Amino acid sequence: MNTEVANSKDLYPSRVKSQPEFLERADPVVYGSTEDGPLTAGQLNQFERYGFLILPAFFSQEEIDACNAELVRLKESAATRRRSEAIVEPDCDELRSLFAIHHAEISPFFSEVAQDERIAGMVMQILDSEVYLHQSRVNLKPGFAGKEFYWHSDFETWHVEDGMPRMRAVSCSLLLTDNYEFNAPLMLMPGSHRKYVSCVGETPEDHYLTSLQKQELGIPDKDSLRELVDEHGIVQGEGPAGTLVLFDCNTMHGSNGNITPFPRSNLFFVYNSVWNQLDEPFGQKKYRPEFIASRKYCEPVSQQAVNYSFQ
Amino acid sequence: MNTEVANSKDLYPSRVKSQPEFLERADPVVYGSTEDGPLTAGQLNQFERYGFLILPAFFSQEEIDACNAELVRLKESAATRRRSEAIVEPDCDELRSLFAIHHAEISPFFSEVAQDERIAGMVMQILDSEVYLHQSRVNLKPGFAGKEFYWHSDFETWHVEDGMPRMRAVSCSLLLTDNYEFNAPLMLMPGSHRKYVSCVGETPEDHYLTSLQKQELGIPDKDSLRELVDEHGIVQGEGPAGTLVLFDCNTMHGSNGNITPFPRSNLFFVYNSVWNQLDEPFGQKKYRPEFIASRKYCEPVSQQAVNYSFQ
Repeated sequence: MNTEVANSKDLYPSRVKSQPEFLERADPVVYGSTEDGPLTAGQLNQFERYGFLILPAFFSQEEIDACNAELVRLKESAATRRRSEAIVEPDCDELRSLFAIHHAEISPFFSEVAQDERIAGMVMQILDSEVYLHQSRVNLKPGFAGKEFYWHSDFETWHVEDGMPRMRAVSCSLLLTDNYEFNAPLMLMPGSHRKYVSCVGETPEDHYLTSLQKQELGIPDKDSLRELVDEHGIVQGEGPAGTLVLFDCNTMHGSNGNITPFPRSNLFFVYNSVWNQLDEPFGQKKYRPEFIASRKYCEPVSQQAVNYSFQ
Repeated sequence: MNTEVANSKDLYPSRVKSQPEFLERADPVVYGSTEDGPLTAGQLNQFERYGFLILPAFFSQEEIDACNAELVRLKESAATRRRSEAIVEPDCDELRSLFAIHHAEISPFFSEVAQDERIAGMVMQILDSEVYLHQSRVNLKPGFAGKEFYWHSDFETWHVEDGMPRMRAVSCSLLLTDNYEFNAPLMLMPGSHRKYVSCVGETPEDHYLTSLQKQELGIPDKDSLRELVDEHGIVQGEGPAGTLVLFDCNTMHGSNGNITPFPRSNLFFVYNSVWNQLDEPFGQKKYRPEFIASRKYCEPVSQQAVNYSFQ
C-alpha cells in the first residue's frame, strides 16, 4: 500500500484503505511540564485530556482593535485579494481566508503577532521544543453567507498531503469578533485527539485548490463521527473577541454555516515542533505550496514582545 | 403597480418595488384575552412583545415517542417519498420535509395531533377565533448535511404567493428531537413581528418548486436584516424534545446548516383564523398547491383529546 511514496514509516496511514478505521495515537499530547512555561498544571491537564484550551480575554480590546484594523486593510486591498494566498467564498466575492500572514510581505503586523511571546511560550511549553510556523491564516466567515467547515482533523491533512510525520503541533485561534452560539463558532470534540480516524479515498492532484473552499476528501465517515460524538460530545469555542483557543493538531473540529449578520473572523497560527518538520507527503508526490505548508522557511519563532499600539 | 392582481386592498405589498422598506404592522398580535384560553396574562404579554413563546416539556416523552414512531414510518415509506408533498434534500436523498400531514391520507396519526385541544386552545385564544390548518409539515434536518433556512417572515410568502390577507395566523413548532445550540435550532428575532419587511424582486411562476429546497426570493435584504438584528437580537429556540414553540406569522426566523450528527426534526402546524382565509394571491395569478396553502379544505379544528398511547 502506498508504495509510490518515499517515506516508509507511516504511523498514521489514511486514504489508502476502502474501510475507515480508528488508530491509537502514538504520540504524546503534552510534551512539557509546568516548569517549561506559563500554563498551570490544571491547564496542561485540560489540554492533555480534552485536546484544547479556551482562554477568554487573552488579548485586550486595544490589541484586538489593532488586529481588526489590519484585517480591514487586507480585505480592502485589491492586490492582496489577487494573491494566490487569498481564498474567496464560492458563492460571493468576499475574502474567506488569507494564508501565510506570518510573512511580512503579506502582513507586516500579523507577522509580528505570530511571534508574540505570550502565545509562543504556551505552545513551546506544550510541545517542549522550539517551534516554527507551519501554517497561518486569517479566516473571515462573513455574515449571511458564511459556509460551513466540515469535521476534520488538521493532522490528517498535514500528514497525508504535507508529510508532517508525528503529532507534535498546536493550533491557535485568536477570535477577532465575538463568537456567539448562533454565528457558527468553532465546534470541537473534547478527547477526540487521542484517536486518529483513518479516512477512505484517494487524494487527487492539486486537491488544495478545491479543498480550501469546500473540504470533500480527508474527511471522516459518518459512522466514525457518530462514534466520536457519542463518546465525547461537542463543545463550542464561544467567547468575546480576544479569546484564544489552543488546540491539538488531531482534535476533531468543524463549524456550521452562518446566516446571521454577525461575521466571524479569527487569526489562525499553527506551530509545529522543529523536531517534526515536513518529510515527503505520505499520500501524494507533489508538495502543496509553501504558503499552505512551510517547508523552506522554518525559522524558530522569536518570542518577541509585540507593540500593538499603532495601526 | 401589481395591477394584474385581482385583490386590490394590499396592506402588505412586497416584491413590487426596487427598494426594500419597513411597513408598520396594521394588525393586532394578540386578539384574545386571558378569559379566552389557557395562556396566562404573562404568556400573552410575552407573545405580544416578542412574537413567540417557548414552552418546554409541553409534550411528554411518551407522546414524543409516538410522534417519532410515526416519523420513522413516513421516512421509510417509499410511497410517501414519491408524493408531491415530499421534499428531498438537494445534496442527498434524505427526506427534508413532508407537507400536509394534517390530512389523514398522509398521516392518520399526525392528522389527529394537529387537532390536539391543548395546542388549539392556545392558538384560538391568541387569535380570538376559530382556526383551520393553513399548512402543516414535518421538517427533518438530517445530521451532517442539514442545509440552512435563510431568514424570512412566513407571512410575506403566504401573503404574496397565497393571498393571506392579514396577520392573523400562528405557527407551532413541536420539537421531536433535542435542539442544542450546535445542531442549528430555529433562530428568532424577538420583536421583529411588529414590522413588515417589503422585499425586492418578482416571483417567478411555480416558485414553490425551488423555494422549498432553497429560499431565494421573498427574503429580506441584508440591510433590513442588520437593522432588525441590531434592534432585536437573536434568540435560539433550544430545548429538549417535547418543547413547543408558538410564533406569530410575521416573526423573522431562520436556521443555520447542521454538520453535527444530531438530526433536528419538528412538526410544524400553521393555524389561520377562519376570518382570514386566502384571497387571490397578491403577487401572482397562479395558486400554489393545496398541500402548501389550504384553500379548499378549511374546516375549523375540532380540538380533540388525542390518544398518544398506540403507535
